[in-house]
Amino acid sequence: MPPVLLSASFRRVLFLSIFVLAFPAAAEKVKLDASQWGHEAGDACVSCHTKSSSGLAQQWRDSAHAAAGVNCMDCHRAEREDADAIEHEGQVIATIVSPKDCGRCHTKEFEEQQGSVHAEAYSIIEDRLPALAQNVGGSAMQAASCDQCHGSRVKVRGDGTLDPATWPNSGIGRINPDGSKGSCSSCHGRHRFSKAQAREPEACVRCHSGPDSPDKEIFEASKHGMVYAAHREEMNLDAAEWVAGRDYTAAPTCVSCHMGAAGKLPSTHDVGLRNVWSLNTPVSKRQFLVIFEDGAKMELPGDEAAPRRGTEMARADGTVGVVKAVATPERRRQAMTLVCVECHGKGFTEGFMRQFDAVVELYNTKFGEPARAIMAGLYERGLLTPTAFDEPIEFTYWELWHDEGARGRHGASMMSPNHAWWEGMYLVGRNFYARFLPEARAAAGGHADEVVDAVLRANGQHEWLDQPGQMSAILGFPPQEVE
Amino acid sequence: MPPVLLSASFRRVLFLSIFVLAFPAAAEKVKLDASQWGHEAGDACVSCHTKSSSGLAQQWRDSAHAAAGVNCMDCHRAEREDADAIEHEGQVIATIVSPKDCGRCHTKEFEEQQGSVHAEAYSIIEDRLPALAQNVGGSAMQAASCDQCHGSRVKVRGDGTLDPATWPNSGIGRINPDGSKGSCSSCHGRHRFSKAQAREPEACVRCHSGPDSPDKEIFEASKHGMVYAAHREEMNLDAAEWVAGRDYTAAPTCVSCHMGAAGKLPSTHDVGLRNVWSLNTPVSKRQFLVIFEDGAKMELPGDEAAPRRGTEMARADGTVGVVKAVATPERRRQAMTLVCVECHGKGFTEGFMRQFDAVVELYNTKFGEPARAIMAGLYERGLLTPTAFDEPIEFTYWELWHDEGARGRHGASMMSPNHAWWEGMYLVGRNFYARFLPEARAAAGGHADEVVDAVLRANGQHEWLDQPGQMSAILGFPPQEVE
Amino acid sequence: MPPVLLSASFRRVLFLSIFVLAFPAAAEKVKLDASQWGHEAGDACVSCHTKSSSGLAQQWRDSAHAAAGVNCMDCHRAEREDADAIEHEGQVIATIVSPKDCGRCHTKEFEEQQGSVHAEAYSIIEDRLPALAQNVGGSAMQAASCDQCHGSRVKVRGDGTLDPATWPNSGIGRINPDGSKGSCSSCHGRHRFSKAQAREPEACVRCHSGPDSPDKEIFEASKHGMVYAAHREEMNLDAAEWVAGRDYTAAPTCVSCHMGAAGKLPSTHDVGLRNVWSLNTPVSKRQFLVIFEDGAKMELPGDEAAPRRGTEMARADGTVGVVKAVATPERRRQAMTLVCVECHGKGFTEGFMRQFDAVVELYNTKFGEPARAIMAGLYERGLLTPTAFDEPIEFTYWELWHDEGARGRHGASMMSPNHAWWEGMYLVGRNFYARFLPEARAAAGGHADEVVDAVLRANGQHEWLDQPGQMSAILGFPPQEVE
Repeated sequence: MPPVLLSASFRRVLFLSIFVLAFPAAAEKVKLDASQWGHEAGDACVSCHTKSSSGLAQQWRDSAHAAAGVNCMDCHRAEREDADAIEHEGQVIATIVSPKDCGRCHTKEFEEQQGSVHAEAYSIIEDRLPALAQNVGGSAMQAASCDQCHGSRVKVRGDGTLDPATWPNSGIGRINPDGSKGSCSSCHGRHRFSKAQAREPEACVRCHSGPDSPDKEIFEASKHGMVYAAHREEMNLDAAEWVAGRDYTAAPTCVSCHMGAAGKLPSTHDVGLRNVWSLNTPVSKRQFLVIFEDGAKMELPGDEAAPRRGTEMARADGTVGVVKAVATPERRRQAMTLVCVECHGKGFTEGFMRQFDAVVELYNTKFGEPARAIMAGLYERGLLTPTAFDEPIEFTYWELWHDEGARGRHGASMMSPNHAWWEGMYLVGRNFYARFLPEARAAAGGHADEVVDAVLRANGQHEWLDQPGQMSAILGFPPQEVE
Repeated sequence: MPPVLLSASFRRVLFLSIFVLAFPAAAEKVKLDASQWGHEAGDACVSCHTKSSSGLAQQWRDSAHAAAGVNCMDCHRAEREDADAIEHEGQVIATIVSPKDCGRCHTKEFEEQQGSVHAEAYSIIEDRLPALAQNVGGSAMQAASCDQCHGSRVKVRGDGTLDPATWPNSGIGRINPDGSKGSCSSCHGRHRFSKAQAREPEACVRCHSGPDSPDKEIFEASKHGMVYAAHREEMNLDAAEWVAGRDYTAAPTCVSCHMGAAGKLPSTHDVGLRNVWSLNTPVSKRQFLVIFEDGAKMELPGDEAAPRRGTEMARADGTVGVVKAVATPERRRQAMTLVCVECHGKGFTEGFMRQFDAVVELYNTKFGEPARAIMAGLYERGLLTPTAFDEPIEFTYWELWHDEGARGRHGASMMSPNHAWWEGMYLVGRNFYARFLPEARAAAGGHADEVVDAVLRANGQHEWLDQPGQMSAILGFPPQEVE
Repeated sequence: MPPVLLSASFRRVLFLSIFVLAFPAAAEKVKLDASQWGHEAGDACVSCHTKSSSGLAQQWRDSAHAAAGVNCMDCHRAEREDADAIEHEGQVIATIVSPKDCGRCHTKEFEEQQGSVHAEAYSIIEDRLPALAQNVGGSAMQAASCDQCHGSRVKVRGDGTLDPATWPNSGIGRINPDGSKGSCSSCHGRHRFSKAQAREPEACVRCHSGPDSPDKEIFEASKHGMVYAAHREEMNLDAAEWVAGRDYTAAPTCVSCHMGAAGKLPSTHDVGLRNVWSLNTPVSKRQFLVIFEDGAKMELPGDEAAPRRGTEMARADGTVGVVKAVATPERRRQAMTLVCVECHGKGFTEGFMRQFDAVVELYNTKFGEPARAIMAGLYERGLLTPTAFDEPIEFTYWELWHDEGARGRHGASMMSPNHAWWEGMYLVGRNFYARFLPEARAAAGGHADEVVDAVLRANGQHEWLDQPGQMSAILGFPPQEVE
């Protein structure tokens, strides 16, 4: 493809266009417009629920839905043939209101959300559940833990009610009875469905906290979080559009950078759109986001050539898709940067991004790749069984990339020095040197030199281990005292 | 006892009655009514404390006590014969205002609180302090740590002043010089004694946070916490009664579910009343709460027969009590559920409770019981000394149930997937397989098969360990790469 | 020096005087007074930055600077000969506004801050960075982690722009191009520079959180934090002076005790002034704070004799200083106590301080000193290499004092029982007994008795290990079951 010179303004349109893609509607359900709001049975719902489960009705009364005349039945009504239709006080309803249902009015949000890493959160872990949730934990853990964030594959019983092994559930990648993926109420708490609430950092806490993804803690420990805490009441969280730099300037929240509008950058419900790196992987990759003609999306390693528009590609689910557009890592970075520059200079922003990228690259080359090579060597020589987690080193390796390694990379990406270092890379280093290597050598036995130490020697970043005479005051012993 | 048919309304009265039990007053101190408020020396206290420790006086000025005309002396006055009476600026006062003192006006709250798990918090750990606080830590830790939550056994010196090894202290099970147990200011911060403050989740943080009981963190990471953070200002925290579903509907706090009024359910100051399970134990049990004629209370395993009214029972302190009422696990669950259904449907609530119970049962049968059996085997054969914590495996076992096991169970009970799994059952599984079992086999030596592996074989939930060929992509190695 | 009798009022003046020391101005930059505010180029800055990086201009508009007529150029203007001067839209400016720049108006704050432990935060770790940041981590970690709290040594490139390996950075001990140390925006977020924001506990979170210094978490888990959460809106955080006991009484924040005014005690920007103990050290020491004639400061062990006024002393940087004043540990404690007594009685305050000191002394004598002696023995005999962190026990020892040991001591100092015990001294004990001692014995090999066990025997606080028959119910086995 010969290079094409584009005018600056055309390039801007092109650049932004990927962030306002209108996908072909995946929803088959009837669209609703305002003239159809206000189902005639709605008053009866509210009247009864003012006595029974009254909080639920009050939350709705406090909602934009109530103000707009959208009632219980507008969202919960179902067709008799729907898998999860039940009869309730003379009405045919479904307990679950799926993204497809919400999409009857909130079309743009639904289309952006479908195919996003959020919508795919259950699909991408389903084949891993036996090894971790079942073996290390037990089947009860899936409903109460994994599925509460990732979503459940909701099972409808013969009578239309929902199997308690799969529901209650508001996991973000829930496989709904109508085939749609996700749960809007994961972020927009029922039955208020508040914009403002979903814009607060606490909206993400249920899933983005804890050892493997302490994003809420990282935010709180960052300059952004510190300033947000002080100025929350000036954040204008209820604004219709909530454009950074216009509607608020005190601080960003999670939503600002990952989904929010800023200057000319439009908002999106595809939360991963602006992410350059895969950070929750054994080794991070810069990634393309491929968008297909049918609205599906796929991440691809950014070190291969970008697929061209019109190319047919096999997808994870076995189908073939036609490429409609590709967001390159550079474009994804540019999009994120458009948020930064609402409050920071360009030099500041670029300097920060370099510091972040350097941490990811350090993790990759010094720890991630060697650890993976060592594990591969152990598996290949049959020194470990293929079953995950039946040998202690598999927990060490898992936590090295999935927990402390992810924390270090996320900490650097969102500016919590504590998470980047003490809860991140310090532990990566400590566990690599003091736990993983000894365990790997023990597992390798007579093969330790070829499986473990050869990898370290080839790497070149571990030579300090061979310099036992370096003195430092760090442990509290002045160098001269130690002879 | 033959079954008795009761009318629905009578059953409701009976059901709720256990939650409004009026105990025989344990307080011997004179009761106060409003006509006695406003001790004549109070003005002098305030006048002086406006200059010295002025914050203390200002907190009181901002309090409901000040508004009602209750002054310093109304609470702090003492009789010369009181163990902790001191003379202060010409008045006889006591530094500690005990629950018995508060109960002179707040009779219902005092009676509910006495005998509760909160009031007994020091008594239930007293015999365990040598092994943990003294041996593993040291005696200074008791005053600064254990006792700050559990309460101290307050020691009065000869001159009526309080021994600094036991005071300052506002632990919730403090043994006061007047014999009463607890400290109202543990939750209601001095000298404001605010209802609103005690209704916030932060009221519980001092004790219900950290590795062994991260309840505040669990709440914050739950849907409830996420919605509370957004809508705190609508929570009507200052309301006189604060009935869920009536006075507030945005979200519950700790108090809502464990102590709060909801619909027809009355509030209580017995924080454990609505808890079905013992969750901080090696193996969880469903529990009866037995209430005796003299107001004392006792938890009993729910898998035995419920004691009947009028039965005489021996109690932990050696005394014999006459059973006045028994709250069965089912009734305790029903009481808690009355809070849930103010905002959730019955099916939702039942489904959630099943998910929670399933986690507790999984913990019990897959990890708690086998680990206990293995430890018992080691102790019985003399493979471990009876002294706790002098062998490393005793720390591993302790943390298995007391820390990560408790976190997993609490996480499931209050809907933090992170705590249920990553900070809970994932660690239980990891530590059971990768630490506890190897340490137990090492301690057992030649007895490992009978003491350790026989227990696993009999259990039936660890068979995956014997299937070394299970492939999974979870560690980052596609199954086909590992041969 | 013969004792001198001083009148009470003179002693008070003397006592307080150390806390209002006016140091000889270290700033050579021209002083600014209000008549010089309002640089003529300022309007152009704001006009352009209303379009570009508009948040930045809006933050300034919301600031006290804007209200007072202090504009962008008043702070950012530079001289052509300044190392980091750049030309920007026709003006000569510097990106970094250093404490010396701020000190042109905020003289008192600048002088207090220079020489403080905050200002020296980078200097005191610089020689330790190779062993930890570089070896265990990698050079990318310094910019993204260590330096983000401690500050970077800012490197200016040939064109006057800042090296991304050292900037963006707002670490509190940053070595600025003009030679000054620190970063005011570390606590006072740019470009708002809000007093109120810096008084909130969140102002400290970026650095004072996490495993080695969870001060923000400790505060939040204390009674102070619990009450602050409830009454933040009554804290009068915007007050001009913010004197505890006068301007607010609900609760203290970090600033209140460490820097704030209280009663007659003046505020200070030397954050370490009121600290008695070194708490982040292998063994804690009570400390003198020596203030030299040239404004430099130095901590000295409090168990030696206090240097007298006028004494010449060698300093860490090789220079010699003349002692101007010395704050003894007792005086530092008295200063802190002046904050406490605004809301607490004297007996309460003294009792608390005794409980805190007892924890530090327990840590020192039972764990800190023996562990150090054992490590010294291993180093002296060549049983460990001098290089830090190339042997696993060095991580165990490091975390014993730098992480869990620091947490225990800080937890006791700020009243979080959880941090004092479960996240502190419990882990110190567990790791000392179950990890450090076995690792030390393994490293010592045949020397274990003389290097390890002789230290324990001489200590006298570990005798419980030799009493294997102590029974306790703590692990869930009633004593009688274990025979």
